[in-house]
Amino acid sequence: MTSQINAVPNASVTSARGFRAGGIYAGLKTPGPNKLDLGLLVSDNPCAAAATFSKNTIVSPSVVVSREAIKTGRAVRGVVANSGCANACVGQQGLTDAREVVTLAAKAVGLQKDEVLICSTGVIGKELPMGVIREGMPKVRLSPDGGHDFARAIMTTDTRPKEYAVSIRAGGKTVTVGGCCKGAGMIHPNMATMLAFMTTDAAVDQAFLRKALSEAVDASFNQIDVDTDSSTNDTCILLANGAAGNTPLKGTGRDSELFARAVQAVAVHLAKEIARDGEGAKHLIEATVEGARSLQEARRFARSIVSSPLVKTAVYGRDPNWGRIMMALGKTELPVDESKIQIFIGGIQIVEAGIAIQYFPQAVIAALGQPEVRLRVNLNAGSAVGVAWGCDLTEGYVVENSAYTT
Amino acid sequence: MTSQINAVPNASVTSARGFRAGGIYAGLKTPGPNKLDLGLLVSDNPCAAAATFSKNTIVSPSVVVSREAIKTGRAVRGVVANSGCANACVGQQGLTDAREVVTLAAKAVGLQKDEVLICSTGVIGKELPMGVIREGMPKVRLSPDGGHDFARAIMTTDTRPKEYAVSIRAGGKTVTVGGCCKGAGMIHPNMATMLAFMTTDAAVDQAFLRKALSEAVDASFNQIDVDTDSSTNDTCILLANGAAGNTPLKGTGRDSELFARAVQAVAVHLAKEIARDGEGAKHLIEATVEGARSLQEARRFARSIVSSPLVKTAVYGRDPNWGRIMMALGKTELPVDESKIQIFIGGIQIVEAGIAIQYFPQAVIAALGQPEVRLRVNLNAGSAVGVAWGCDLTEGYVVENSAYTT
Repeated sequence: MTSQINAVPNASVTSARGFRAGGIYAGLKTPGPNKLDLGLLVSDNPCAAAATFSKNTIVSPSVVVSREAIKTGRAVRGVVANSGCANACVGQQGLTDAREVVTLAAKAVGLQKDEVLICSTGVIGKELPMGVIREGMPKVRLSPDGGHDFARAIMTTDTRPKEYAVSIRAGGKTVTVGGCCKGAGMIHPNMATMLAFMTTDAAVDQAFLRKALSEAVDASFNQIDVDTDSSTNDTCILLANGAAGNTPLKGTGRDSELFARAVQAVAVHLAKEIARDGEGAKHLIEATVEGARSLQEARRFARSIVSSPLVKTAVYGRDPNWGRIMMALGKTELPVDESKIQIFIGGIQIVEAGIAIQYFPQAVIAALGQPEVRLRVNLNAGSAVGVAWGCDLTEGYVVENSAYTT
Repeated sequence: MTSQINAVPNASVTSARGFRAGGIYAGLKTPGPNKLDLGLLVSDNPCAAAATFSKNTIVSPSVVVSREAIKTGRAVRGVVANSGCANACVGQQGLTDAREVVTLAAKAVGLQKDEVLICSTGVIGKELPMGVIREGMPKVRLSPDGGHDFARAIMTTDTRPKEYAVSIRAGGKTVTVGGCCKGAGMIHPNMATMLAFMTTDAAVDQAFLRKALSEAVDASFNQIDVDTDSSTNDTCILLANGAAGNTPLKGTGRDSELFARAVQAVAVHLAKEIARDGEGAKHLIEATVEGARSLQEARRFARSIVSSPLVKTAVYGRDPNWGRIMMALGKTELPVDESKIQIFIGGIQIVEAGIAIQYFPQAVIAALGQPEVRLRVNLNAGSAVGVAWGCDLTEGYVVENSAYTT
């Protein structure tokens, strides 16, 4: 038996056919080895596009410009992304600069400016250094293997680039979904952003593409927590260029369903990479809540567990402190029947009917020492399952975010 | 001109007439100098009672028992409180034990069991050690100066007891409102609780007492944040025994208004003490949001600022990182007009019309080094003002909550 969704080697945002990308060091960040800060992603063909943006009511003009473009429903062919500067909280100049960056990018790769989206990440409250962007943009070289450089060009405090891709058979063809992202971990000396770029060579109806992205984001990027803060710049973009030549996917039938699962697989993989690479993090925490009354409630319970500072510090300290998990369930203010709750750490049951049971402590401590710490709760109130990912809270987070720099 | 609300020296929960209290070391906690863990608070007369409880859907049976008693509207004459054990997540035994503790307390001080409330704080998931409680209860000695011992008996990771009292003239008499509390900082090795006890010798109509407490809690304990976690045991109780002999306060007129302000003054003082004494905290952070459209929104904005890990680490690092304050405003998802925002740190304006302005950095860094760090935002969208208090996030918090112990 072979899996229907297969991981693609040498994965990147240009794994899908008909996408090229590149990235350079333009001078937005302090220079360093392998440091890139300006990237371009371009499709050979017009793409159906879908995107989700930060719900923060103060957003970067880069978000404003891309949100407007997505709202029109127009085809998209390119994305320009910069790190080092969030282009946020800079007044009217931010909008002027975002529009100019889009124009510069379009010109550099021979597109119309209304075919190009923009994403920015980095220091807030500082204007984009337009001089170095004007100078750098024409120097970006696009290639089918340039996704790796693009992934580096969006990094801020990330310790490594985050890339993934899968292939499926759909609409009579082999179809690839790939992507890259950067972390939601908070930036030194300023907050950062979650940026995610996904591409596919599938031909996909735009309405279905939007639905597939929205559902994938709900199961992935909306289920991770590094700290509780959400940024002015969070963006997730999915482009579909149809280069695979498949029968267009319209949202019904097995192939559409498989495509949606593939998008979700890429999104979940990327989201977990963000949680794993949280600032100061030593462990990825995966919380699974089973037996909930609805998917929405299951996910909210799971998020509450991974976002609790007490659970995060307990994992860091390898302390099987299940009371903190109980507290995290209840603080959602959703109904729970305490007397039905089971809790497992790394597969070892430690709570039955809401009460601690005997377990072999060394085994649980060992489970808490794994790179991926699995917390599982069964509420025994229904059949819905939700999963969320986070990371432990360490002294490293505090050090990284408190050192004086401005 | 003299203030209408005057701080009372040697303040405690027994500053008001007709209240006696005491506390002993019964053996619920590891022994140590000045460590007490079982306290009783008793009124000479029946009291009108009001209380607020944790909204966590998993609560300690101690909360269940007190909530039931408050719901009946019966007069209350006593409170028994223990630290060391939260009596939470222990199944049916917790309810049996809570009722027995109430019975033991009532017997020890000559009251009916339905006149006594109970509060517990400490380790979760462990049953109350009933043996030491049975043995200890009769040894608690009540005295009019025993509020200080009571305040010690409820401490967990608090570094100091927290007590305050004020007096006013109301209903033709001098009336005192006093209280004590313990911290919401999270407990090593388990989570803790915010417990607050307030007493007054005023004669107060019960409906008005409940309203006054509810409004005071909204302005104080609901506006502090140490971490984002809320406990299974949070409780705030206000008892009014009428020993002052004043004309009963019914909620209308100057005296009732002054009484409500006095209750709020005590609650705010105690709440700030909790924030100041947060685990690992070096600074109290006071965030004031002015110019909001409503009190509710103003308070929500202010809470969002003090509860942001990024703001908390920025204060710890003395980093005038106003972008994080902007982010915290927007992440409420409430409407804000970025172009109208002014931000001040310790009285020094650093943002005008949503954009950074020139300031003398050393002065701002000095303001961030004060024991009380004042952040002020004017939204210029209305006239409502909200205040919230928190503390900085330091390596100390992580160390305190992650050390392995179980």
